[in-house]
Amino acid sequence: MNRKEFRDLASPAAAREAIDSLPLEAGVERVPLAEARGRVLADRLDAELDVPGFDRASLDGYALRARETFGADEADPARLAVVGEVHAGEAPAVTLEEGEAVEISTGAVMPSGADAMVPVERTDVDDGTGDVLIRTSVAPGDNVMFAGADVAAGERALGPGTQITPRDVGLLSALGVDEVPVRASPRVGIVSTGDELVRPGGDLESERGEIYDVNSYTIAAGVEDAGGEAVLYPHAGDDQDEMERLLREAAEECDLVLSSGSTSASAVDVIYRVIDEQGDLLVHGVAVKPGKPMLVGRLDGSAYVGLPGYPVSAMMVFRTFVAPAIREAAGLPEPETATVTGRMARQERYAEGRLRLMPVGVTTDAEGEPLVYPVDKGSGATTSLAHADGVVEVDPDTDYLEDGEPVTVRLFSPDVRPPTLLGVGEDDPTLSRLLDSLENPRYLSVGSRPALRRLRDGTPDVAVVAGPLERDVDADELARWEREWGLLVQSDEADAISGLADLVDADLRFVNRTADSGLRTSLGVALADLADDRGVDRHDLVEAIEGFDLALRAHESPARKVLAGEADVALGLAETADRLDLAFVSLGHQPVSVLANPDRREKAGVRDLERALDSAGETVE
Amino acid sequence: MNRKEFRDLASPAAAREAIDSLPLEAGVERVPLAEARGRVLADRLDAELDVPGFDRASLDGYALRARETFGADEADPARLAVVGEVHAGEAPAVTLEEGEAVEISTGAVMPSGADAMVPVERTDVDDGTGDVLIRTSVAPGDNVMFAGADVAAGERALGPGTQITPRDVGLLSALGVDEVPVRASPRVGIVSTGDELVRPGGDLESERGEIYDVNSYTIAAGVEDAGGEAVLYPHAGDDQDEMERLLREAAEECDLVLSSGSTSASAVDVIYRVIDEQGDLLVHGVAVKPGKPMLVGRLDGSAYVGLPGYPVSAMMVFRTFVAPAIREAAGLPEPETATVTGRMARQERYAEGRLRLMPVGVTTDAEGEPLVYPVDKGSGATTSLAHADGVVEVDPDTDYLEDGEPVTVRLFSPDVRPPTLLGVGEDDPTLSRLLDSLENPRYLSVGSRPALRRLRDGTPDVAVVAGPLERDVDADELARWEREWGLLVQSDEADAISGLADLVDADLRFVNRTADSGLRTSLGVALADLADDRGVDRHDLVEAIEGFDLALRAHESPARKVLAGEADVALGLAETADRLDLAFVSLGHQPVSVLANPDRREKAGVRDLERALDSAGETVE
Repeated sequence: MNRKEFRDLASPAAAREAIDSLPLEAGVERVPLAEARGRVLADRLDAELDVPGFDRASLDGYALRARETFGADEADPARLAVVGEVHAGEAPAVTLEEGEAVEISTGAVMPSGADAMVPVERTDVDDGTGDVLIRTSVAPGDNVMFAGADVAAGERALGPGTQITPRDVGLLSALGVDEVPVRASPRVGIVSTGDELVRPGGDLESERGEIYDVNSYTIAAGVEDAGGEAVLYPHAGDDQDEMERLLREAAEECDLVLSSGSTSASAVDVIYRVIDEQGDLLVHGVAVKPGKPMLVGRLDGSAYVGLPGYPVSAMMVFRTFVAPAIREAAGLPEPETATVTGRMARQERYAEGRLRLMPVGVTTDAEGEPLVYPVDKGSGATTSLAHADGVVEVDPDTDYLEDGEPVTVRLFSPDVRPPTLLGVGEDDPTLSRLLDSLENPRYLSVGSRPALRRLRDGTPDVAVVAGPLERDVDADELARWEREWGLLVQSDEADAISGLADLVDADLRFVNRTADSGLRTSLGVALADLADDRGVDRHDLVEAIEGFDLALRAHESPARKVLAGEADVALGLAETADRLDLAFVSLGHQPVSVLANPDRREKAGVRDLERALDSAGETVE
Repeated sequence: MNRKEFRDLASPAAAREAIDSLPLEAGVERVPLAEARGRVLADRLDAELDVPGFDRASLDGYALRARETFGADEADPARLAVVGEVHAGEAPAVTLEEGEAVEISTGAVMPSGADAMVPVERTDVDDGTGDVLIRTSVAPGDNVMFAGADVAAGERALGPGTQITPRDVGLLSALGVDEVPVRASPRVGIVSTGDELVRPGGDLESERGEIYDVNSYTIAAGVEDAGGEAVLYPHAGDDQDEMERLLREAAEECDLVLSSGSTSASAVDVIYRVIDEQGDLLVHGVAVKPGKPMLVGRLDGSAYVGLPGYPVSAMMVFRTFVAPAIREAAGLPEPETATVTGRMARQERYAEGRLRLMPVGVTTDAEGEPLVYPVDKGSGATTSLAHADGVVEVDPDTDYLEDGEPVTVRLFSPDVRPPTLLGVGEDDPTLSRLLDSLENPRYLSVGSRPALRRLRDGTPDVAVVAGPLERDVDADELARWEREWGLLVQSDEADAISGLADLVDADLRFVNRTADSGLRTSLGVALADLADDRGVDRHDLVEAIEGFDLALRAHESPARKVLAGEADVALGLAETADRLDLAFVSLGHQPVSVLANPDRREKAGVRDLERALDSAGETVE
């Protein structure tokens, strides 16, 4: 095997500097006012006209000369002849002479000769003569908004770099501006590589090792979050000519090209060669975890950054190094990073001599103080970040973080709200429906045994366990219900099996659950009973079951193997059989328990869960 | 005049309740994954497949049976025959037998028979035989990501109500989801009324009292900020049939109809009648300022809210009462309202017995503590909010807020950043260019005299004044420059006037600046000199100038009157004449001074201004 090795890793600061040196600005574009919200003004806008453009009546009433009201009051009103009326949106037809008034509507043009107005509430009309009686005195300018009083022509209206709010749209509207010069969004091309990638929505051939392409849409969403415009290019394989053509096409059309996708060494090599030979390679490898295989360079006048292939790594590197550059180019202010300081919920070891960007979740302890726990499922995981709230940066010279050590979490965005409830444990359909009624819960399907372990460590608020488990942890049982479990087979093969004995005796391909799961525990107990009945060793029964070791992690996965024809019998729930239209052989019922950390009973999220359990009727027997 | 009076004002709480009682939900729609960012998931999404869908090699190396490596180390490697290779994206062609290994790439499918892999770095190839030598021992499962280890079929993936982040897009991608069921955005129709309104971009006839329609685009931007979809309807005049037709069309097509725009009593009356007679009127008038004329009701199955006509009032009512209902219907969480507590920068009187929503600006004092000042320019103003940072709610029974009294400001959004520098004073082109180079300054063109008054009150950081002013305020002059001022005339009438004497003697229509402005002060001094020369009273000269009292607020407004042919001569700057292509008669130079509050010299924004002044060469002489 022939692989590019990273000789000298650049420091994170050097990588940032290299990216900052690349010009990403996309220039200026003009957008209609209706689409200007959230965009960034490219130039200063000065008022080109007075607002209002005329002296404007502020109320309904009478326009007049102020001096003719001097001395007027309730007892001794001034009498003026009404010589016309002006409504909003029409030109005054009269000019005011001495002793005259004009009826006027809010927003109408003050007629020539008038210098103030009196609201209708302070007037009476003499029914006989039609004259108006003014029962108050006003000063010149009273109840009139003079031309330019709101905004005056030539006044500085909005400065360059203003991110346009609805309030600014108001100012621009008042000025009659219907097209706004804004910073163009940097176009960011996303080229994903790897023969094994299939776009979401496409058909996946798992047996060929195909996986859905996570990076393309995820990075595209990140680009748009940062104010860029994402352009997705078709997948490139590992062919160098094709890859070069695609990268050049993207470089031609975009301000920045990101490559991402494959973790395969050959695809990475191909990209490396294209940039190194055809462009300008500035950085190759950075001393950060994740992020070591990052590339920074230029190709055909466009900026280029190569992201790591693993989705979590790609997103962390994108957020840390690329998104700030896109925001800068889009003219958007760096968001006031919301940070939370909390205690580590458990020890975390780390000693690789690189800066580490550690995705974490945040929850609260009994006192409402933040608790921080790492969420990474390993480098191949695609989904850890969906269950994370932010990132802790761990220094290269920090070897481990102690349990209880204070750390600072940079939240993914200022509006990240840590979950109200952190639950861990068994997958269960009843539980899933319950969680739907809660506001912002987080539930990690780790299985029953790991759930108990974590509850003992003190991180989650509740653990949901199934089956006949020894639980050596101090916990309050909030609720318990039963679920029916057994064996699932294709409907047309329902005759093949009528109980556990058939699983042992017949020639069937079985799919099991992992040892972590409550179903597996219940199956183990049932097999032990059968062994007792037969007077044989339990181990002999297990050996006779083909596929007993083929253990899958989630409650539906075995059933889906049966559905796909890859197995004959699966361990599972009656509810799953029903939902997936499989035949079901019941082997019994097992309890599902919701166990709460006793210290967290008063936490709002736990109380909400209790209420939801109560109203669903799932209470402790 | 015939006007609807508001008999019983509803309490703000009752108005909110009425709006909450209206169903705004727009149901569920399916959007492509590429457009799902920021949308709100309508239903729970469970994983429909295992991720990865196969047992996957985590590294480049060799797939093998773990037990054949037991005991292997650097000194005594295990030797295995290499019987094939598997790359990412291809199905393994071989099944492993005893004593065999398969070369495997990161991400490739583990071949049958293999239960672990060893990274290439811990192996050597025997060039003679082609066998691989394994220099380490591994356990079953080492360096393999098992099917479903990342996400397992049937696992709860995302709960209903999740607002989709890029990280969630990653999870959805991994699951192959390319279409997402999301809460549909409530459609909000905006009907604006009033014969006097012109859409931005249209031609304005100020003499007819036309003004640009501020509310339509502003409210539309607010609707979109709140997660709704805004639909603008054509302007309606004051005709009842036409208005009814428009409102019904909007009610038919939208979940919520907002009317807004006119301040004219007749237009408001027409709308009132349509809702009252054809629909269902729930609230008419609310005890809040602004917001008294608010309407809440139903029309043809759609919700209806009538907003006040004045733009500032409309926006305040929209934000306070309508936006939360739209967010709720869109499934968006109420933003964690950012609040700032600061001291009132001046006394504010208020005694109307209604809840008051007071728009304010926020700045910082010498100690960096927030100072809060009201920004409303009066009910007719369209633009106050563009210079505001948030709102202070003043209780109905609070008659006044003391200077220095602590108040809580609800910022318009969590990412509002109060200005780094608050300046007030004269409009000046040189100043405007300087401000462009600063980050987020705020400058209020109030004229020279009010600027000095405010500087004395202690609100702004700097005041910019022009002309020969008495300044009885303790201030540090940061910079001073000269600007040439004089009279501006149409180019083809440049012969008509050669100096100030002509303004007095010839029959010319003049346009002045307001008494607040430095130009007006300089003109006054020049006229006094001329009166001295002629041995007459200054007042006589002023009387001889037609239009001396026609005083406009901004430095360009008089020039624009000349440009429009509405006057012959304007007071203004040489730079303005140059820019607007007018002829210029110089009457002298006047100083422009940048004065800083001595307490604020260390404030970052003031230091930035000093640096900008320095590098522009505008330093104190």
